[in-house]
Amino acid sequence: MVRQVTAFSNATVKRLRSLREKKARRAEGLFLAEGLRIIAEARDSGQLPEIIAFSPEGAKHPLAAEIIAQAEAAGADAVETTADILAKMSGKDNPQMLLGAYRQPDTSLDRIDRSTADLWIVAQALRDPGNLGTILRTGDAAGAGGLILIDDCVDPFSVEAVRASMGALFTQQIATARWDEFIAWLRSGEGQLVGTSLKATDDYLDSKYERPCFLLIGNEQQGLPADYEAACDLLVKIPMAGRADSLNAAMATAVMAFAIRSSWR
Amino acid sequence: MVRQVTAFSNATVKRLRSLREKKARRAEGLFLAEGLRIIAEARDSGQLPEIIAFSPEGAKHPLAAEIIAQAEAAGADAVETTADILAKMSGKDNPQMLLGAYRQPDTSLDRIDRSTADLWIVAQALRDPGNLGTILRTGDAAGAGGLILIDDCVDPFSVEAVRASMGALFTQQIATARWDEFIAWLRSGEGQLVGTSLKATDDYLDSKYERPCFLLIGNEQQGLPADYEAACDLLVKIPMAGRADSLNAAMATAVMAFAIRSSWR
Repeated sequence: MVRQVTAFSNATVKRLRSLREKKARRAEGLFLAEGLRIIAEARDSGQLPEIIAFSPEGAKHPLAAEIIAQAEAAGADAVETTADILAKMSGKDNPQMLLGAYRQPDTSLDRIDRSTADLWIVAQALRDPGNLGTILRTGDAAGAGGLILIDDCVDPFSVEAVRASMGALFTQQIATARWDEFIAWLRSGEGQLVGTSLKATDDYLDSKYERPCFLLIGNEQQGLPADYEAACDLLVKIPMAGRADSLNAAMATAVMAFAIRSSWR
Repeated sequence: MVRQVTAFSNATVKRLRSLREKKARRAEGLFLAEGLRIIAEARDSGQLPEIIAFSPEGAKHPLAAEIIAQAEAAGADAVETTADILAKMSGKDNPQMLLGAYRQPDTSLDRIDRSTADLWIVAQALRDPGNLGTILRTGDAAGAGGLILIDDCVDPFSVEAVRASMGALFTQQIATARWDEFIAWLRSGEGQLVGTSLKATDDYLDSKYERPCFLLIGNEQQGLPADYEAACDLLVKIPMAGRADSLNAAMATAVMAFAIRSSWR
């Protein structure tokens, strides 16, 4: 049954709105995704929201109507509400007409089956949610299996990260781990750990990448700590032509991921 | 002479603050850059601010002090102010301790000398200032000569674009033009126009790139219009592995720019 909600003070409205905060996401184990494109991507990846909110206009779109019906059939709380209330929940003047609250997946490292993909992206102390989402999207486009977040990274389930991922949050596996946990797990099986460093002597285009390859990306400001670089099986550099500084973390990920992939053709 | 400014109502404070708005930037012909890293990059590229504002702490840094002295010697208005006032001007809680107002360069297409670089990036209807800045930074790293902005793009001199460029705004030439102007200019000399399209049949890794190469990047949402694609000398695709959508505009630029550059080695 679709519920009609027209009050800003409604408990579900407040609950969805609270999911913009990390504390509430952690307490509830839920996160928000906004817009038909991302919600359809989630559905196509087999994931339906536990709560789905939409405006009357949103429900008119055939694909949206189909997903709302599927979510309801699967037990979701389906809430028809006003554009104003959706705007309040999304924190945007021009809100999407569809919004879902999804269960956060288990992000334990032991849920990752490395044999399911040739490439995995490992990011350390990533600070910017837009970068995180963009890296997920790039990983998806480059055929990575998922993203392993090391040390104190920004929350991958933040609204900004989900939005920047353009749905790749639902197609990429996500794990979080401390560095020592990650290294122990990595060395318990096959896998080449590849870092990029401006100090490396091996050119990224002349290097041999093994499968599975774990591409390690450092923090936006500091790059990789020295002992993390030392733990890599291969350290490569992307030669820079420029007078300004290096590539940003997400760009370096894109260039490396596509270079690794093309080296396997 | 360094002026001391301690009033929020000071005319220079208001003037610098106003440069966060496009209207004021256009009227004044100035734009803002924040932080020592970017301002040092500008200086290293031969550009000094017309107004430089700094906190007492900011002026203590030897490199900052050197640049402040150089700017003053070149006739800049040097303003020592408080951290609170810098915060108001930069619109950030945690402001940079150094802020400069720079003269906007002439962005006429006829200022571009295509013989000075092998690669030029051409972006159409780019909407996001962070993407624009990131594309500038990527162009710098990949050895591009500059960025040509076609149709209605976001302002390259916005604070967000300058920040995301990490100083590449000062090392890359910038031009703005309508599409028909650009095509007339392009065809008046040598140059291969390369577009990316999911519909293309040529793989980006198997294609031959000529110099100078003009890499055409489409709008974040719609990609390139069909007639723009038709005007390209070469249309290539980056094969996507993913289940979600394509690479974003800045990522596609990075992958293409580095692939073109590596094809010339």
